[in-house]
Order: sequence, then C-alpha cells, then structure tokens
Amino acid sequence: MTRVNSRDQALRERAAAVIPGGMYGHQSTALLPDGYPQFFERGEGAHIWDVDGRRYLDFMCAYGPNLFGYADPRVDAAFVRQLGQGDTLTGPTALMVELAEAFTAMVTHADWAIFCKNGTDATSMALVTARAHTKRKTVVRAKGAYHGAAAWCTPRPPGVIDSDRANQLFCDYNDVASLEAAVAQAGDDLACVFAAPIKHDAFIDQAEPDLSYARRARELCDQTGALLVVDDVRAGFRLARDCSWSKIGVQPDLSTWGKCIANGHGLSALLGSDKARAAAAAIYVTGSFWFQAAPMAAALETLRLIRETDYLERLNSLGGRLRSGLDERARAAGFSLRQTGPVTMPLFLFDDDPDLRRGFCFASEMLERGVYVHPWHNMFLCAAMTDADIETALDAAEGAFAALRSRAPGLEPVEKLAFLSAAPR
Amino acid sequence: MTRVNSRDQALRERAAAVIPGGMYGHQSTALLPDGYPQFFERGEGAHIWDVDGRRYLDFMCAYGPNLFGYADPRVDAAFVRQLGQGDTLTGPTALMVELAEAFTAMVTHADWAIFCKNGTDATSMALVTARAHTKRKTVVRAKGAYHGAAAWCTPRPPGVIDSDRANQLFCDYNDVASLEAAVAQAGDDLACVFAAPIKHDAFIDQAEPDLSYARRARELCDQTGALLVVDDVRAGFRLARDCSWSKIGVQPDLSTWGKCIANGHGLSALLGSDKARAAAAAIYVTGSFWFQAAPMAAALETLRLIRETDYLERLNSLGGRLRSGLDERARAAGFSLRQTGPVTMPLFLFDDDPDLRRGFCFASEMLERGVYVHPWHNMFLCAAMTDADIETALDAAEGAFAALRSRAPGLEPVEKLAFLSAAPR
Repeated sequence: MTRVNSRDQALRERAAAVIPGGMYGHQSTALLPDGYPQFFERGEGAHIWDVDGRRYLDFMCAYGPNLFGYADPRVDAAFVRQLGQGDTLTGPTALMVELAEAFTAMVTHADWAIFCKNGTDATSMALVTARAHTKRKTVVRAKGAYHGAAAWCTPRPPGVIDSDRANQLFCDYNDVASLEAAVAQAGDDLACVFAAPIKHDAFIDQAEPDLSYARRARELCDQTGALLVVDDVRAGFRLARDCSWSKIGVQPDLSTWGKCIANGHGLSALLGSDKARAAAAAIYVTGSFWFQAAPMAAALETLRLIRETDYLERLNSLGGRLRSGLDERARAAGFSLRQTGPVTMPLFLFDDDPDLRRGFCFASEMLERGVYVHPWHNMFLCAAMTDADIETALDAAEGAFAALRSRAPGLEPVEKLAFLSAAPR
Repeated sequence: MTRVNSRDQALRERAAAVIPGGMYGHQSTALLPDGYPQFFERGEGAHIWDVDGRRYLDFMCAYGPNLFGYADPRVDAAFVRQLGQGDTLTGPTALMVELAEAFTAMVTHADWAIFCKNGTDATSMALVTARAHTKRKTVVRAKGAYHGAAAWCTPRPPGVIDSDRANQLFCDYNDVASLEAAVAQAGDDLACVFAAPIKHDAFIDQAEPDLSYARRARELCDQTGALLVVDDVRAGFRLARDCSWSKIGVQPDLSTWGKCIANGHGLSALLGSDKARAAAAAIYVTGSFWFQAAPMAAALETLRLIRETDYLERLNSLGGRLRSGLDERARAAGFSLRQTGPVTMPLFLFDDDPDLRRGFCFASEMLERGVYVHPWHNMFLCAAMTDADIETALDAAEGAFAALRSRAPGLEPVEKLAFLSAAPR
C-alpha cells in the first residue's frame, strides 16, 4: 500500500481514546481491508470524500440511506425549510399525518404508520405489536438474517442474556420445510414470522425469495392467526415502490422501513394493516425525536421522488450494466465472480475464496482506483449514479482484476476474518 | 371551552385513520385536558404556535430537547453548514471524534462515548454493557422511574412478555433500605444499579436525590463489582454542566444522555468510564443514523453554549422567580400548590387534588392565557426564556387561579385519568 492516510490515521488514534474499540457498529472498518478510510469529509451525489481528500464513487450509499444522492438539493431544501419552521416541538406537525397518508397510500398492505428513528425501533415494535395482537410469544425468523442491534436480535452475543432470546425459533431462508418445522414447533404460541424481503446476509451469497417460501409464510400466519412481518429496512424502495414482497404478490401484516425513506435524514417506520391496528395502539412506544418534523418533510419529498421519477428503472438499468460488465471483465481476467442479490443491491464474491483473501484484494484495488466497494456486505446503488459512473467502475474493475491476477499467488489469509473459517456459515 | 381548534380537529380526524390510536407516545394529548392542541405549526425561542395559529409560551420545551430556544440560530447554523458538507455517509466524520472529546471532557466520570438516536438506545446499551462487563444479569432500578420505551422498560405492558423483564429487581427511590434489600436479593448476580438523577416520575411529587441514597448506590456497586448507571437523558445539563450527580459528588460508571444535547436535533449518547470500556467495545450496537454528522455539529455548538454561557445560572434564576411568584399567587388565591423538582424542571400539583381535576382546570386556564403547562409531567425551562416571559406566566397564573376559584366547586373527576384512582401511586 502506498496510500497516505495521515488525517485518517490521526483521527483513529484520537478515536481510540474516546470511542470504545475506536469505532462501533456497521461503520467500523475493523473488518474491512487495511487502507479503507474510517473517516469521511464530504458527500455529494454518488461520491464521498475521505478526510485525506480522496474521492470515491460510493457503492455503499451510507449502507442504504443514500437513494437519490448525497445532499440531494430537493430533499435537503424540504428539510431545511421545515427546520426553520419547527422540528422537535412539544407535539407533532401536520407533516406527520401527511407522511402517514402518503406512505400508506404507496404500500399496499399498510393502513397505518408509526414513525421512529432506528430500523431496530421498527423491528422491535413489530415484535411487540405481534405479541400484543396475538397474546402469544414466539417469533420464527431465519438464521443469519439481520433484524437490528437490540438485545433480542443483535448478531454479537456479549451482554445478551438467554431471556433476551426467549421464544425465538429459527428456520432457513427459502427452505419451506424448515419454516414449517419451526411453525409446528411454536405450536399454539406463534406470534409472528419475520422475513427479510431478500436474503441479504453478510459474507455469503444473496438470494431472492422463493415464491413458495413467501406464500407458505403467509399461509402459515393466516392459519395460526400470527402476523407476517416483512423487514424492509434495508431493501425498501430499491426493489419496488411498495413493500418489496408486493413484487411476488405476498402482502405482510406489518412491514418495517428505515434507511432511505428520507434519503439520509433520520427516520424509520413501522407500517401495518388494520388487523394489527388495535395492538399497535395499545403498546407504549416513543422517543424524544420521533415527532421531528424536518425529517418528515424530507421523507415526503423522497416519497414524491420515488413515485414521480423513473429512479427505480434507472437503478435497475445501472445495476444490470454493472453486473454484465463485471461478469465480462472477471471472465476476461480468468476469474469466476458470483454476483448475487438484486442488481440494485449487489454483492460479489469470488469462487474458491472461502477466507475472502481475493475479495479483500479486489476491494482494495477498487478503492485505489477511486471506487468504494464492500467485500462482504451487500452494496447499494443510488439514483445519482450515471452510466458514466458505471463505466468508471468497470474500468476500475478491469485494473483491479489485473492487479489481483498478479497478486493472487502471494495472498495470505485475511487475519481479521479468521472467524469465518472457524465458524463457516 | 370557547376555543376553536378547527385545523387541529381536522388533523386529528385524518390522524385517526393512519396513525394507531390517532397518536402514540409521550406527545399524544390523550391524557391532557380537552382543548390542548395535538398539532403544532412552528417553534421559535421559547414559543410554539399550534396549527390554529395560537402562540404559547412553552414550558414543555419539546419534553426536554429545547434548551437554548427553538430554532436557535447558532445551533441550527452549525447543523445546516454540516448538512451541506455531509450528514449520513458511508462512515463517520471527524466531528464524531471531536464530539466524543468535548463531551467526555465535560462529564467528570466519562472516558468514552457511544452516540445513538434515542434515549432508550442509550439506556438499553447501558444495560447490555453492564451485563457484558459483569457477566451477570440482574439490574436494580426504582419503581416508577422511566428509563425508556423498549420492552425491558416501557411503562405500559401490552406486547411485553415476562422474559423481557427477567432479572430486574425494584427499590423505592431515595429509600436506602429498599435499595439494600434489592441488592441483597440480587446476590452474586448484580450487573448494575440504574438511577434517575432526580425522581421525575409522572403524576407525583418530584424529589431531589438523597445524598445517602446516591452514596449507598455507589458503595453497593463498588462492593459487588456492579456498574452504577445515572440516566441523565431527561435532566442532563438542566442541573449541572456535568453529570447531574456530580452536584452531590457521586460519579457513576455509565451515564445516558439525550434530549437537549443537540438542542432538538436527533442525538443521544452513552458515556462511560474506563472500567466499562472493554465491555462497551465488545457489544454490537449500531443504527443507520448513529453516525450522522449534522446532529453532531449541532451538539458541538450546544456543548459550547453550555460551557461558555451563563445559561444554567439564568435557568435557575428564571425558575426561582417562577416558583416564588406562583407560590405567592396561589396563596393569594387560597390554593395550596406543591411545586417540586429542581426549579429548572418544575412540576406543580394541588393539595387535595388526588384525581387532578384542579390541576387539569388550572392547566386549561393557563393554556387559554397563552402559557403551555403540563398538569402531571415535569416541565422544562429553556434559556430563551426571559424575565418578561416569567412575568407573563405569572400574570396568566393569577388569572388562572381566579378562574379555578370560581370553577372549582363544579369540577367533575377527570374521566381520562380514572386509572390514577384505580391504582394509586
């Protein structure tokens, strides 16, 4: 590595003193290749600049929130206008009603909305709502699926106690038999089935939902009186202008939203059908900033852009072009690259690369060429990307594959990912 | 009531269709006097305007977040400047390090910080951190104290299952014997003691912490190896420019913050001492918007104002003036008013008013006179208030006491608060 990360390095040293582990959560670079910047300076459109002044075409989109481009002038103007009027007040503004109306009008299954701040707020409320509705306890969800970072669902165990995970049963995503077995095991105690709209687990190939799996989940909930929850926090509005499972004709009772619904402003939501309305009204949920008006103004503008622009068709076109272009370039360089997930939320993994050493090397080489890709987490396209950006990415990939070709024989296992081999998924 | 709430009423009807119960959480007016507006239009300084155009001097301050005035130009300028540079990005900005440095420099016990969005995020993380640190489970906390709205702590039971509340023991605030008994009952399983910095429970008199209680909590934690958590989400920076218990010389291991730390922008925090650093680094906690830079810019400016202005002395002076002025006017009108809590976070309850009918009537009469007070939740002063505002409030109170005097004999029990008599606290 010849990169000079002098400001980034200095900030890491300061962070190590005042932030546990130097950084926490999904934006920690602890499991990314060396040389990935931890700290950024700026974002505009499809690009980010790190604190050492380097510019990247960003395929992470803030891990989802950036749908129309960083600092989109339409969304941010709506936000700033409302900020001058009133944001966190002693009560909500009319925007809360307008947003609930606009959102439920777009999401087929939804009759009502509760707004919150974190995706985890929405998924946790979905669980509590389902338990209040059914007066039962058990949730069935897929092994390895991420539904947030509260004690009941966080993927890392320290500090979590057994009772936090009580009344949870697990199935394999897209495996109907395992879903049926878990539901049978729940017996008369099934409160809900959680489903990611696609399999977007980290470190492994992504998968679209099997229609038979989605339909069976719906049937089992109907038969038992349990609620079906689609967790659309991550994928929402990158697959459809509706709940993601509307594409396959399966409607949940509850859906959870976050990330991009206000194009980067802090807002998430639980949407539900009339069936669950009384339960949702009975639970006590709140937060100091849940009634903030400015993020709601931003969301209203974001939803308008979702409805009125061809952003989704463009995302699909850009994503298709990226996928086929990468395929060609990988093959030309003699690599077998598995590109999985929807083209708007891609992940690429190399064949014969169980410890991700090739993936790490490729990602580093892309970064060197000004393209920020992730070696093991699904990526995101945004509507600020252009065909020219995709060409830039493909040119970078051509160079990165060539570099990987020459470096591949000497690559060592990635020490920071040793846990993957220890516990293969 | 002669008030015309036509826009508010229309919005309530629309809200009833798309929001469970019409409104949720602490900003629902379901338990406030009729005539209290549900929806607001604008906030500036110490005032809010409802959607029917009425202006109020606001003693709720958004339930805390408003410390320096709504739409404070200094804080909002910092926010908007950063918004144009970058807010929710693929990683944090340098502001996160600067804010952790600034915050820990101000809070005596704190060596590190984790930033989040809800007060509930901070309290839930404190619990998980304490369990990770001690490898034990039990939390001791005071009956009736509010620590958030997650399943483990929400005050309303629907949807909560027994295992959500496992390993929790309760004591009475300021009652040393009950604290000792709960700790003894926890035996060798005590992970932490949660403490509100003051008793700020709803519906009842507030109380300052007894020094003996605070010191004993510290001692018991030291003896058992458990962590002491001060939940400063609500009271933070309205009692001290440090953790609230610094006033009485008791330092916790963890403290939780939110509400006013960015003067209304969405940000909360868990602060901790070195003792708990390894545990905090081991847990997995995150959120899509936890790394947002613009609220951190707002927080840096808010912390600067806290350090560099006499806001706290002014809040105390304004609050003292309000308290003594209200006392005089209540006495002159023949009422016995209990004013409890710190003068910067007042609550007033009438003697001989167990079902709050007098309190409701008084609050309504204050509202009529353009002063927004709360009949059963602690209120908040903000630094945008002036001596003239306090005089306005006292003039309103004089009129409200007179009106109460004439209405008192005919007042009926408050139906929506019937649960108070059913289960007296």
